[in-house]
Amino acid sequence: MSILSTNPLRDPQDRRLPQIAGPCVLVIFGVTGDLSRKKLMPAVYDLANRGMLPPGFGLVGFARRDWATQDFAQQVHDAVKENARTEFREEVWEQLLEGIRFVPGTFDDDDAFIRLRDTIQELDNARGTGGNHAFYLSIPPSSFEIVVSQLKRHGLTERTEHNWNRVVIEKPFGHDLASARDLNEVVSSLFDPHEVFRIDHYLGKETVQNMMALRFANQMFEPIWNNHYVSHVQITMAEDIGIGGRAGYYDGIGAARDVIQNHLLQLLALTAMEEPTSFEASQLRAEKKKVLAAARVPENMDLHTARGQYCAGWQGGRPVKGYLEEDGVDPASNTETYAAIRVDVENRRWAGVPFYLRAAKRMPRRVTEVALSFKRAPHLPFTATDTEDLGVNALVMRIQPDEGVTLRFGAKVPGTQMEIREVSMDFGYGGSFTESSPEAYERLILDVLLGDPPLFPLQEEVELSWKILDPVIEHWAAQTEQPQPYVAGSWGPQCGIDMLAADGFTWRRP
Amino acid sequence: MSILSTNPLRDPQDRRLPQIAGPCVLVIFGVTGDLSRKKLMPAVYDLANRGMLPPGFGLVGFARRDWATQDFAQQVHDAVKENARTEFREEVWEQLLEGIRFVPGTFDDDDAFIRLRDTIQELDNARGTGGNHAFYLSIPPSSFEIVVSQLKRHGLTERTEHNWNRVVIEKPFGHDLASARDLNEVVSSLFDPHEVFRIDHYLGKETVQNMMALRFANQMFEPIWNNHYVSHVQITMAEDIGIGGRAGYYDGIGAARDVIQNHLLQLLALTAMEEPTSFEASQLRAEKKKVLAAARVPENMDLHTARGQYCAGWQGGRPVKGYLEEDGVDPASNTETYAAIRVDVENRRWAGVPFYLRAAKRMPRRVTEVALSFKRAPHLPFTATDTEDLGVNALVMRIQPDEGVTLRFGAKVPGTQMEIREVSMDFGYGGSFTESSPEAYERLILDVLLGDPPLFPLQEEVELSWKILDPVIEHWAAQTEQPQPYVAGSWGPQCGIDMLAADGFTWRRP
Repeated sequence: MSILSTNPLRDPQDRRLPQIAGPCVLVIFGVTGDLSRKKLMPAVYDLANRGMLPPGFGLVGFARRDWATQDFAQQVHDAVKENARTEFREEVWEQLLEGIRFVPGTFDDDDAFIRLRDTIQELDNARGTGGNHAFYLSIPPSSFEIVVSQLKRHGLTERTEHNWNRVVIEKPFGHDLASARDLNEVVSSLFDPHEVFRIDHYLGKETVQNMMALRFANQMFEPIWNNHYVSHVQITMAEDIGIGGRAGYYDGIGAARDVIQNHLLQLLALTAMEEPTSFEASQLRAEKKKVLAAARVPENMDLHTARGQYCAGWQGGRPVKGYLEEDGVDPASNTETYAAIRVDVENRRWAGVPFYLRAAKRMPRRVTEVALSFKRAPHLPFTATDTEDLGVNALVMRIQPDEGVTLRFGAKVPGTQMEIREVSMDFGYGGSFTESSPEAYERLILDVLLGDPPLFPLQEEVELSWKILDPVIEHWAAQTEQPQPYVAGSWGPQCGIDMLAADGFTWRRP
Repeated sequence: MSILSTNPLRDPQDRRLPQIAGPCVLVIFGVTGDLSRKKLMPAVYDLANRGMLPPGFGLVGFARRDWATQDFAQQVHDAVKENARTEFREEVWEQLLEGIRFVPGTFDDDDAFIRLRDTIQELDNARGTGGNHAFYLSIPPSSFEIVVSQLKRHGLTERTEHNWNRVVIEKPFGHDLASARDLNEVVSSLFDPHEVFRIDHYLGKETVQNMMALRFANQMFEPIWNNHYVSHVQITMAEDIGIGGRAGYYDGIGAARDVIQNHLLQLLALTAMEEPTSFEASQLRAEKKKVLAAARVPENMDLHTARGQYCAGWQGGRPVKGYLEEDGVDPASNTETYAAIRVDVENRRWAGVPFYLRAAKRMPRRVTEVALSFKRAPHLPFTATDTEDLGVNALVMRIQPDEGVTLRFGAKVPGTQMEIREVSMDFGYGGSFTESSPEAYERLILDVLLGDPPLFPLQEEVELSWKILDPVIEHWAAQTEQPQPYVAGSWGPQCGIDMLAADGFTWRRP
């Protein structure tokens, strides 16, 4: 009995159901890491449980750990039990288990890669995968080169007309334009561009995809989606946590490289792009590229960028450390934990509309959103006092948490006079759909196995994003003073407030 | 202590607070009627309780009833206790009571009008009203002539530079264009146009006034408020009740004359009008008049109008009579209890956008709303199956009950594929404001006393509305068959459904 056929909810006649991946093997390097345990392995199980994986599916873990396959299987089992979003069903697990293998070894160990090749071949035969393999590099970019050369040397990605080999890589895609290009050279020495799947997990989020549905499936939003009506756009990714145990990764990288370069510039691209003819990958990517190519931070970066670093404060009712006191952080570090930049999109639709991007840790709450603020109506047939409490119209797309859309507008206050006050109407994903949202990694892993690339940024997008950000990073690097401190649990440093005030705006308090 | 000063909630420094009426006398003819008991007297009390009436306020009832003033005062007291919306406060009542008088008499009784004149003069002196009087004719139009001539004969409306006299009249403003003109001649024989306040109580409703706030205080709605984006508009006034005890008024009048001529055409005017320079009465009325002058029912009335008559059915879980079985209804009556008409507004903004107006009794539920349906997006970058469940974007202004605004649009259904389904976001008046809405009559009575006319239709608007409706009524009168029957508790007759289907639309089920 296949995993597919065990799903009683699946009606194969429904054309709107997503495709199911064909037989294949998913090889994960770095399988002992956090991402693998929290996201990748649970996502694989959830996909199986939803009937999205083929019966002939194999999962191979590769890591420097003295494990037998059953030890690894136990790890997967525990990760699934702990982090999967769907119910644990024994028969699904049994089916998945048949295809699980583990290969112990280090990246420089030829024997390990020979064992890996043999294991994959055995799975190819046993599961009938037809030689279709996806290699997920859940490892530091510094290890890409050796892994790729090992794959090459051991003939692990041989392609015929009938099979496919794909590689999945995660951000960071370098730490600037030059390093991004170097990294890409390593990967493209073995894989063709269409075989490389760069994961920006924000693009796998339901609410990010809903941005496209909202704009393009509806008549009412697109007419006002331009510089005639929009005054400015705020894209915020606020985290309430600090850096946790991630000092080794984060220190020296900072908020701009960590999330603005990828997540926030991708959100900007989706917000600002023209309507693609279809959501076919080449069309969608072409529109995003046009936006990124037209986007730049204004020259006066003292005025139009801001960086901060959290110092000790309170969060959730308890005292928290400052960034410089975190374990593993250089006490003299000038890494920013708050980054805000203005980006101008220099095209006909957006000329004159600043996009403000901010990413920060230790904010009062966790929220990611895109907010379009509209201009005031050009004429108000009210008296001045009528509209004292009138805010500005805004359309807020809430990416996470509390996914949904909010529209802010002015309405008449009940009473025998005309007084306008700002109110909002709201659409919540949770309340509106009974369907549960797949986790971003579920969607993205499935798309890798299906070879469906629209939600994966191209190398060109990565490079264009670095072109936007590199001047900012260079400007900051040239400063002698530290990033401006801000109290943990506050909305960031004064320079961030000043940056918007200079343009006559204020940050939303989402 | 004045009523004003007894209201602890009132801050005289707040400029947004409405004006308070100056000293005056309100005379109500027909004070024993339903409207007076249910709406007018409670509204007067509520205004007093909110501090909107001056200390020098007098209320005179006139009716053919053998009452002394204290009997009338008791009636007012009971009506207030039963129907007022604000809390009963003894001190407010006492203050109001001092100005209450009753004059018994019939309209043809000269002595009664002499007593009325004496009573008003006494109140003028006692309360310092300065000779400011409002005469509320809550009586059948057939009695207007005699009352007006009595007022004239007894010098009850003498005007100097320092006082005012106003008359308030209620619909029906005639039963066709000719009778509306006749009625107006009667009233205007004594009152100047600026002294005549025609009450269409829909215009006093908060949610109707919010239509103007929504359109003109916001930037985001007006750009799509035209025939480029709107496919059609539906204006519905559905009542779940039958005619109750109103056969004497309703039979021979019908739904079109009863509510389309006034409420629904006013809602149409507010929906379709251009933005007035200000809400000053002349500006607002000029814009409404332009719409009404441009509005007409298409010539083929068999196709573009529909009428029905409810027959026996079920409502609220109990059987209800058909219209022809109602007490007081002519068993051969061809009066329509369901009327639907298409109105085209022939101007640049609305050419090609049909407005559908329907008014009916014995519908499944009570609801009044204005719904703008938008066209489909001109291009959908989705596959056909993605958008199978995509409805049309709509903006629904809910007038009553459950006052608010709903926006319907397409959003992505959670899942690993792109599927769009219709969802809605909602703004509810009740949930968004702590202020309580004044009842329509409160607002309108206050406006009469303030001499603030924007919310009162002009005679020209009344006449333009009859010009739109007269051809329909004549067309229906020429039919030999009865209005199409529909089961009480259903959404109306087949001809109403067909009328929209002919244009490719369907009625909303609000």
